[in-house]
Amino acid sequence: SLRRLVQFATVGTASAWRRRRPYLLVGMATVATSGAALALSIKRENWPELPLPAVVKSAPVCSAASIGRPQHWMTDPVSETGWLCDPSNSAEPRVGMERLCMDLQGRLCRAMEELDGEARFIVDKWARPSGGGGISCVLTDGVVFERAGVNISVVHGSLTQQAVRQMNSRPDRHKLPEGKELPFCAIGISSVIHPRNPFVPTMHFNFRYFEIDDGKGGVSWWYGGGADLTPTFLDKDDATHFHRTLKAACDNHDKSLYPKYKAWCDNYFVIEHRGERRGVGGIFFDDVDSPNQPAAFAFVSSCADAIEAAYLPIVRRNMRRGYSYADRQWQLLRRGRYVEFNLVYDRGTKFGLFTKDARIESILMSLPPLARWEYCHDPDSDPVKAQLMRVLREPVDWA
Amino acid sequence: SLRRLVQFATVGTASAWRRRRPYLLVGMATVATSGAALALSIKRENWPELPLPAVVKSAPVCSAASIGRPQHWMTDPVSETGWLCDPSNSAEPRVGMERLCMDLQGRLCRAMEELDGEARFIVDKWARPSGGGGISCVLTDGVVFERAGVNISVVHGSLTQQAVRQMNSRPDRHKLPEGKELPFCAIGISSVIHPRNPFVPTMHFNFRYFEIDDGKGGVSWWYGGGADLTPTFLDKDDATHFHRTLKAACDNHDKSLYPKYKAWCDNYFVIEHRGERRGVGGIFFDDVDSPNQPAAFAFVSSCADAIEAAYLPIVRRNMRRGYSYADRQWQLLRRGRYVEFNLVYDRGTKFGLFTKDARIESILMSLPPLARWEYCHDPDSDPVKAQLMRVLREPVDWA
Repeated sequence: SLRRLVQFATVGTASAWRRRRPYLLVGMATVATSGAALALSIKRENWPELPLPAVVKSAPVCSAASIGRPQHWMTDPVSETGWLCDPSNSAEPRVGMERLCMDLQGRLCRAMEELDGEARFIVDKWARPSGGGGISCVLTDGVVFERAGVNISVVHGSLTQQAVRQMNSRPDRHKLPEGKELPFCAIGISSVIHPRNPFVPTMHFNFRYFEIDDGKGGVSWWYGGGADLTPTFLDKDDATHFHRTLKAACDNHDKSLYPKYKAWCDNYFVIEHRGERRGVGGIFFDDVDSPNQPAAFAFVSSCADAIEAAYLPIVRRNMRRGYSYADRQWQLLRRGRYVEFNLVYDRGTKFGLFTKDARIESILMSLPPLARWEYCHDPDSDPVKAQLMRVLREPVDWA
Repeated sequence: SLRRLVQFATVGTASAWRRRRPYLLVGMATVATSGAALALSIKRENWPELPLPAVVKSAPVCSAASIGRPQHWMTDPVSETGWLCDPSNSAEPRVGMERLCMDLQGRLCRAMEELDGEARFIVDKWARPSGGGGISCVLTDGVVFERAGVNISVVHGSLTQQAVRQMNSRPDRHKLPEGKELPFCAIGISSVIHPRNPFVPTMHFNFRYFEIDDGKGGVSWWYGGGADLTPTFLDKDDATHFHRTLKAACDNHDKSLYPKYKAWCDNYFVIEHRGERRGVGGIFFDDVDSPNQPAAFAFVSSCADAIEAAYLPIVRRNMRRGYSYADRQWQLLRRGRYVEFNLVYDRGTKFGLFTKDARIESILMSLPPLARWEYCHDPDSDPVKAQLMRVLREPVDWA
């Protein structure tokens, strides 16, 4: 909490911070380090601005500032490094989830930098005025990646009534009481990668862990996540490879998971007003809280570990292919459809836009750098485009 | 109705039509002409597919097919030409509104073609399977206009429950009963003009007339509309001219209208998650049903008549200015904000997306041809951009 107070004193408002980003990244790292030392004697229970649920309140006091962070992390984590890296805390769900996010962000960003060869990720650490913060890693204007974002957020606070209603609109069992603001904690990683070459598909994934005070003295927790592929041109080998890699990750835990989560993905990423899916799918899951916490986390970990193997070979295989002006125009048009899905239907985006003090730049990082709309474009008149449209209209069993 | 049956027999589904557009425009014109003759003896009351409200049912029988349409209309109207052009029908609200739409579309499209000098509007007439149709005029890739759309729709049918809920979410008095599908008729014109030169602002307007069966044996009717200007760079003279022209149109009827509708516009076109408005505003009104039907229509007519004078001089003044790559990028970024408003907040767009058999291409014609997003773009660091941002954050009294 002191660390956070120091951050605010130094950084001022989020917008002030944005204005002076290049300097503040350095300043922030310094503050985080000295803050960790300052925070040694502060109990989490005393944080006045965080009405945390029971599970959160039982969190261990930060006590190991001397433990260093893994080298492959992109920067210091949102929570205290010492707390996260103390092996005796490893069974704590929030510790496991934040480490999973930091590990995946570090590995993936470094692998993409190597593939790109030129562009580098900027590491943007931000604080949320009403609790928590995040680490946005963004690569712009690369040779291979036109824009890639890998964003971690570790957020505590109160869900607004609008956000509660938004969450309750899901057809599942985690109904929350409406009419009051509920304390929550959310830890997640989300990423959208927009490659430059139209033959390299766009990829999105996200993994998240929620704890919400259920308004009746208990705590509701669950995992969610998924990964999906959005090609501009259909390549059956790519789609098959992506699905098989995710299926293997699911099958390690339960053979029934992949078919269920594959279908969920097909039903989720639908641009209803166009009668088409966003892409060739992948997996999508939510409300995972069985058979127990460690097993649920192990499943999410397997999925997270599969991301690089599912996607990077597809990038490597296609990133040097030549493409025409028309190929590029079709890519920009499909990106327009991506924008339509994200702004009109995506629950994650809407949850973000309706959350108080949400960091808009991190939420809308999913939007492409450039998108196009054309009046009455007719993909069906071109056999290559039509091939994609067929699988967007009727999902295929790729695995 | 026979005309419509003939249309469907010839045209097939909307998507089949889209595939063969170049040929069908000609076919459609032929069908419409011969259809008007065929429809002579058909009473509107007998149309089986149109559960029309009381006012609509009392509409006069089409009886004057020999009356020709005004030369400046872009094509034949959706309703029978003879019915629309018969002077004895001129007091009928739907006749007045459809003629207003046809007149404005014809005048504005021809004026824009003349300004552009090269590009021409394509005239796309479409039928809605569940009742009604429209005329979309679209100019693409012009010298002056990157994309301009002027769309008329004359739609009858039943509001879905989702659309009823959407309408009821408005903070006004036209509450409709939920839980049943309500017959309605909507006549409107809407337009978005995206110029190529970043120094020429984007302009949007729409005027609409609604009749809805109120579920209690009566009919609810009202007018809505407005016009607003979205510059990439702030030009105070342009903003002042636009507002003063609209103010004069309002003042003709009642001095209290402009301040009220100007403020409504400022409050409506808000991109809430960014804390900014879409542009410098204009006027916005809805639920206009006083002091009586002819007076309400006269007010809407004045506004419609003011569109050309409000906008075209601004185009003419700026369309030849030189601009840089950076100016263009800033324009594309502002267009991204335009997309965000339209897909996340705009009631008209959402109403359209949730209406059964809505013509998506006409609804999403409002989206720009090309739009851009940049992570953490900071307009405040550039004094010229900051000047625009100030008036987007704090509306100004331009008139």
